[in-house]
Amino acid sequence: MSTVLLVNGPNLNLLGVREPAIYGRDTLQDVEDLVRSTAGELGLSVDAVQSNHEGVLVDAIHAARDTCSAIVINPGAFSHTSVAIRDALAGVDLPVAEVHVTNIHRREPFRHHSYVSGIAELVVVGAGVRGYELALRGLADIISAR
Amino acid sequence: MSTVLLVNGPNLNLLGVREPAIYGRDTLQDVEDLVRSTAGELGLSVDAVQSNHEGVLVDAIHAARDTCSAIVINPGAFSHTSVAIRDALAGVDLPVAEVHVTNIHRREPFRHHSYVSGIAELVVVGAGVRGYELALRGLADIISAR
Amino acid sequence: MSTVLLVNGPNLNLLGVREPAIYGRDTLQDVEDLVRSTAGELGLSVDAVQSNHEGVLVDAIHAARDTCSAIVINPGAFSHTSVAIRDALAGVDLPVAEVHVTNIHRREPFRHHSYVSGIAELVVVGAGVRGYELALRGLADIISAR
Amino acid sequence: MSTVLLVNGPNLNLLGVREPAIYGRDTLQDVEDLVRSTAGELGLSVDAVQSNHEGVLVDAIHAARDTCSAIVINPGAFSHTSVAIRDALAGVDLPVAEVHVTNIHRREPFRHHSYVSGIAELVVVGAGVRGYELALRGLADIISAR
Amino acid sequence: MSTVLLVNGPNLNLLGVREPAIYGRDTLQDVEDLVRSTAGELGLSVDAVQSNHEGVLVDAIHAARDTCSAIVINPGAFSHTSVAIRDALAGVDLPVAEVHVTNIHRREPFRHHSYVSGIAELVVVGAGVRGYELALRGLADIISAR
Amino acid sequence: MSTVLLVNGPNLNLLGVREPAIYGRDTLQDVEDLVRSTAGELGLSVDAVQSNHEGVLVDAIHAARDTCSAIVINPGAFSHTSVAIRDALAGVDLPVAEVHVTNIHRREPFRHHSYVSGIAELVVVGAGVRGYELALRGLADIISAR
Amino acid sequence: MSTVLLVNGPNLNLLGVREPAIYGRDTLQDVEDLVRSTAGELGLSVDAVQSNHEGVLVDAIHAARDTCSAIVINPGAFSHTSVAIRDALAGVDLPVAEVHVTNIHRREPFRHHSYVSGIAELVVVGAGVRGYELALRGLADIISAR
Amino acid sequence: MSTVLLVNGPNLNLLGVREPAIYGRDTLQDVEDLVRSTAGELGLSVDAVQSNHEGVLVDAIHAARDTCSAIVINPGAFSHTSVAIRDALAGVDLPVAEVHVTNIHRREPFRHHSYVSGIAELVVVGAGVRGYELALRGLADIISAR
Amino acid sequence: MSTVLLVNGPNLNLLGVREPAIYGRDTLQDVEDLVRSTAGELGLSVDAVQSNHEGVLVDAIHAARDTCSAIVINPGAFSHTSVAIRDALAGVDLPVAEVHVTNIHRREPFRHHSYVSGIAELVVVGAGVRGYELALRGLADIISAR
Amino acid sequence: MSTVLLVNGPNLNLLGVREPAIYGRDTLQDVEDLVRSTAGELGLSVDAVQSNHEGVLVDAIHAARDTCSAIVINPGAFSHTSVAIRDALAGVDLPVAEVHVTNIHRREPFRHHSYVSGIAELVVVGAGVRGYELALRGLADIISAR
Amino acid sequence: MSTVLLVNGPNLNLLGVREPAIYGRDTLQDVEDLVRSTAGELGLSVDAVQSNHEGVLVDAIHAARDTCSAIVINPGAFSHTSVAIRDALAGVDLPVAEVHVTNIHRREPFRHHSYVSGIAELVVVGAGVRGYELALRGLADIISAR
Amino acid sequence: MSTVLLVNGPNLNLLGVREPAIYGRDTLQDVEDLVRSTAGELGLSVDAVQSNHEGVLVDAIHAARDTCSAIVINPGAFSHTSVAIRDALAGVDLPVAEVHVTNIHRREPFRHHSYVSGIAELVVVGAGVRGYELALRGLADIISAR
Repeated sequence: MSTVLLVNGPNLNLLGVREPAIYGRDTLQDVEDLVRSTAGELGLSVDAVQSNHEGVLVDAIHAARDTCSAIVINPGAFSHTSVAIRDALAGVDLPVAEVHVTNIHRREPFRHHSYVSGIAELVVVGAGVRGYELALRGLADIISAR
Repeated sequence: MSTVLLVNGPNLNLLGVREPAIYGRDTLQDVEDLVRSTAGELGLSVDAVQSNHEGVLVDAIHAARDTCSAIVINPGAFSHTSVAIRDALAGVDLPVAEVHVTNIHRREPFRHHSYVSGIAELVVVGAGVRGYELALRGLADIISAR
Repeated sequence: MSTVLLVNGPNLNLLGVREPAIYGRDTLQDVEDLVRSTAGELGLSVDAVQSNHEGVLVDAIHAARDTCSAIVINPGAFSHTSVAIRDALAGVDLPVAEVHVTNIHRREPFRHHSYVSGIAELVVVGAGVRGYELALRGLADIISAR
Repeated sequence: MSTVLLVNGPNLNLLGVREPAIYGRDTLQDVEDLVRSTAGELGLSVDAVQSNHEGVLVDAIHAARDTCSAIVINPGAFSHTSVAIRDALAGVDLPVAEVHVTNIHRREPFRHHSYVSGIAELVVVGAGVRGYELALRGLADIISAR
Repeated sequence: MSTVLLVNGPNLNLLGVREPAIYGRDTLQDVEDLVRSTAGELGLSVDAVQSNHEGVLVDAIHAARDTCSAIVINPGAFSHTSVAIRDALAGVDLPVAEVHVTNIHRREPFRHHSYVSGIAELVVVGAGVRGYELALRGLADIISAR
Repeated sequence: MSTVLLVNGPNLNLLGVREPAIYGRDTLQDVEDLVRSTAGELGLSVDAVQSNHEGVLVDAIHAARDTCSAIVINPGAFSHTSVAIRDALAGVDLPVAEVHVTNIHRREPFRHHSYVSGIAELVVVGAGVRGYELALRGLADIISAR
Repeated sequence: MSTVLLVNGPNLNLLGVREPAIYGRDTLQDVEDLVRSTAGELGLSVDAVQSNHEGVLVDAIHAARDTCSAIVINPGAFSHTSVAIRDALAGVDLPVAEVHVTNIHRREPFRHHSYVSGIAELVVVGAGVRGYELALRGLADIISAR
Repeated sequence: MSTVLLVNGPNLNLLGVREPAIYGRDTLQDVEDLVRSTAGELGLSVDAVQSNHEGVLVDAIHAARDTCSAIVINPGAFSHTSVAIRDALAGVDLPVAEVHVTNIHRREPFRHHSYVSGIAELVVVGAGVRGYELALRGLADIISAR
Repeated sequence: MSTVLLVNGPNLNLLGVREPAIYGRDTLQDVEDLVRSTAGELGLSVDAVQSNHEGVLVDAIHAARDTCSAIVINPGAFSHTSVAIRDALAGVDLPVAEVHVTNIHRREPFRHHSYVSGIAELVVVGAGVRGYELALRGLADIISAR
Repeated sequence: MSTVLLVNGPNLNLLGVREPAIYGRDTLQDVEDLVRSTAGELGLSVDAVQSNHEGVLVDAIHAARDTCSAIVINPGAFSHTSVAIRDALAGVDLPVAEVHVTNIHRREPFRHHSYVSGIAELVVVGAGVRGYELALRGLADIISAR
Repeated sequence: MSTVLLVNGPNLNLLGVREPAIYGRDTLQDVEDLVRSTAGELGLSVDAVQSNHEGVLVDAIHAARDTCSAIVINPGAFSHTSVAIRDALAGVDLPVAEVHVTNIHRREPFRHHSYVSGIAELVVVGAGVRGYELALRGLADIISAR
Repeated sequence: MSTVLLVNGPNLNLLGVREPAIYGRDTLQDVEDLVRSTAGELGLSVDAVQSNHEGVLVDAIHAARDTCSAIVINPGAFSHTSVAIRDALAGVDLPVAEVHVTNIHRREPFRHHSYVSGIAELVVVGAGVRGYELALRGLADIISAR
């Protein structure tokens, strides 16, 4: 059974708590439950990591090289600043789906560019936590096509 | 039963034919079939329009004001150049999901910006024709929440 | 009796309906009535066209070459994207007054530049539908001076 | 009876004298006469100030806070350089109409941006001295709507 | 016998009439006659379309996919604004020669960039209507080499 | 006893009156009282000037050359536009503390840059009128260190 | 008794040691002593953290959500590169005072912009370690006003 | 006998006093003496004005319209910020020579552009106070050629 | 009989040898033969120069002032960097046709701008060595029209 | 015996594994062996650290202050984003040699700028893992010159 | 007796011939005569060089290192493109006066920046060939002050 | 025995003489001796050229096509301005190592970009004349790998 790595970046541990007018009321636990449940339906298992430390995320992505078939990532603020995460994702050579809970194109200009989008297969923004499920579904096609 | 307007912009009539290395081999008919089938599953009906004429698309969006509950749009090349379509979408005040078959962030710089993203609820890029289905699923949540 | 061509661009058919908080509650019919009434007072007649199709507007401007003495135009969204309309206006060599219902300088940056302003005689922005009347009055001076 | 403050910025004392090929042959006195006559027709009175000193204009705008209902301003060269006048106008919280005798969008690039436009209700450019009358008429609507 | 599609964009119906100081006195009919006569000499036939409607041009380009061997296009104002035409040309996968009657590099900065040049085989600018003949001759080499 | 020059730029005479939602309800008199009281506590005296005239401020800064030991300045709108004030401050060679009542980095982009900051010792923004006191305290260290 | 979180970013452990010509000779211990002493005077207590790890700072800011009333932060180099810290600060919804020991506006251009300034209440730059005290005094007003 | 207006802008009253390492030790009086002495040699007389007030300079330039044949101006800091002075100089239609004591191209980037240079006949920078003499000599040629 | 100067810039001596995948296999001798043969057909003679030295090209252009009626130039890499060649061409006041073997708009961004295009009559890019012939034919029209 | 700190940034633990077409097949161990062997030849010893955590690298650089004489660093992705590492390097005041395995000037534009280069003594790019040796040799000259 | 090197760059051999509406009717010989005559008056001798070859100018500047006391240079088009000449001038460490016959600030934007100005002592633009004399007079002060 | 071409660009003949504070005291002869000695050790011979003439360098690079196996080049000022040298290097298809004596990233911004870096295999900056040796060593690996 293929495993998907679910990566959540900085401040996403506050999901449902931080600025609910912007990010909604679902929590990180809700996200992980939704992803696991969708994965189950698709015959996939899930490894999940959330960290506010860029290095922890890079390490986790590296580890996925041998254990996972694909990565769903919401890089949070690191989307806009981290070349290291981009390079880690490119380095492990797995298909990547990028998710943003909010529509980053409607927010401050510095959120309009993501270093990850340039190496992701697909990107889902603005669909709330539902976006994780959609991204996983899109990714499942690619996993099975490999 | 709520109706969703499916809008496809210029050159998407060539889907499956034009540059298959970039856009894949699914045709516009496949897209419409997939959207109708997903919509049926979600209890929604679909009106579909494709045109290479910006004005035809604006007119169709206006007409949806009284007949539809939401819009799924792949504006194609108009994403990058048409303020008129952006304004039409904003003017009819329906939730909008934007779709791009390819990951526009991996292509020429002029494709990285979409006027539509700034007024869409959600955006799905790079998931191939499957992206239409994902967008519709994401939109269904918003329709039912209204 | 001189004739003035009144041109309204995309989405202005929704005037009074679309986003009234931004555009007000007067309709396109109100605009045309106001322009015709002002024109009558000034001894001018009016031909009016509105379209969401750039090509229709270009054709109408061309046709004015032989039938009209001046053009009042609200290019709407095409202000910011259409070199074709700019060239059509320059090509027929009639005095042009540009109108925007809202003050475009207080809106999104991409609305601050208009291709038409570079070839118009005068520009009125932010005066609501009243702006059409003001533009026509300003234009009448130029018509009579020719 | 409501009073409108008419503000003319630097070099406008030379109107009709300075570069007539660009600015025309009407003088500042003609402008004031035209504005007073239009105001009379509209049931308004006029206070007029012209100065080449930014500080004098700021002081005059401040003074209008208690004595006037609206401001018609041609900030001249200060349009492009004076945040102080912008802030003064915003600070007295009166409706503002901005006028430029010439079409500033057809001149040097540094004249295309006006700090005042961002806080004005309406802007009239390129209509010659007639523009003052048009601006006042547009402003009268707003005064009476308050 | 191979057929070449001759495409003329917006306002080129006014050729010889519009701004003759810039565009010269030859008409669109002269252009088509010149192209047909050159084509005859080269053993090629010509299909010609001119429209002020971007969508009509996109449709015509699509239709050429099955009927033509190459395209000579003067996109006019659409050169600078239409990604849709660029994509249509790329989509039908025929060799393209771009023509501009005037030398666009000597005109306003917004005319210096053409979306079409990035996918054309060859570009001829500034040679007047003669440029169509030169472009066709250059294209003929490519057609025969295929 | 050392004297500090307190300089307030354009529109600060309206403090407490102009746009209280942005600038708060303390008046210029309150500012001067606060600065004098803090100065007294620190063994310093205060000369105060406010003007809407850039030239008056430059003259006052020049005059401080022989009479003062330091300058606390809120240049207001001149922060963003006046090289003359920057040069005057650099020319008299006294330590300068710059104050802004609001956090200029949260406002329009043209307020993010201050010509004065490049020659000031310290800058306090966003602390309301309290910022003057803080700036003076910071400056007192520098005065006593000289 | 309210608690203030004092956050010091990367390299500030070297304060007093690193480049004393730029940063002065006071140490991080001096900073913390000064802040604790000022806090005591103001009836506040202090929690202090310094780290060269962005993730440690994000975690500490999150933890302050339940334990602190305000944050004084010198983000050091992270000011210019960390959206994650900006988002953490915005996410915990406490008033923030930003401090820089040096006047960052007199240094390299990449130091002129701080992501934190856009969400801070007040900013003090260039006042040396004294700036921490000034920032805390400014912040105390806001804490007591809540 | 022709008269030349000598205009010195803000802070030039401090010449010889302000930052002598940059501006040298000659005073404004030395400048005026040098210009008068050179003018005498060339058969010209001199009117001199220095002010830190932009408006005073504009007024003085206007007054020169009827009394002077040419203008030598060191606009100081206003070079970089004053469109009003540029317009005043253009408005009086006299030949203008611009002088800068220092080589502004070796200083901060914001000093590299002068609004006055775009309408001056000749510009002398970096020659110290000697530059006034050189500028006057260059201007004398133009005066006598008129 | 009129003479045309054929100028080839740096590295064009390697034509047919250097990077044939980009530049093709025709040599400089082939180019000169083609141009001479076309010129003969048009009743023109040809002077040819190729150099990797900018100064040699400038000298050759100057010499053409008295001996030639027009210039065909492929400035090669100097297109993008040489104002001297642009000025030489403008200085001798002969009609100029610019040629590039490849379509420079499909290559690196620094090749998209040519200093020569701004003073050329016509420009042919991307037609391979055939472009020289086309350019000469276009130029012949202009020569005979003089 | 002097010690050199060898610092390798994020993803360099994957050297030889990650994208070998770009980075080659040598591993991090090979790099460390090569550096140690070169150091031995030069009479130097080596301390080595690799981390995907920016903070770990900053801490390691700080620690080198008292134990090392120079630093060889390949900052990897942090080159382009980390002001903290730049400041750490500047703070410990040791000579720095920067290495990049690939030629970063031939890759994406965001890799062309390195914050570290501005404070390094020397930079070697594109020489593969051999670049570490070259950098160490260059650095050895500087160490012995101190 | 000190010697001054007079350097004239590309196309200045055409002075008086090339585009007299822009550059006037004085020839290069007139320039050299004027400079020699002024030099004689100032007790200086002159070496003169003009070339269209950048390398010849660099060589001549190098040679001046041992034979001249100062350099008057009109770099012509090389002003805007040649770092080599800038470096040569900086390398020989002689005082430099830069001259432009025309006011380059009134011409195309690419002529507004000169690499030479950043290392020159003084710059004279727009004074026609008289500018050479003025520059030499300004330079003489500096020579005698050394 | 393979031969390496050593190319030194403009002003490098002054090495050791020109601005020793920046470039050091080693001469061009020292550089050539060092390169020859290193080459001897590596079993390579050296051809050396230095010129201040871009064309001479282009010619020399072309000549290396048949006689050399690799090129070590310090393009000096031409790095920043010469597309011709870039194209010459690309045209002869030999491995290239670029050297700069100083760290160009610590100097003026216009020195941060080199046209040569984009086609070089490796680049060494800031290592003084030692950099030539390092570059040659790096290049030797590539030569032997071919």
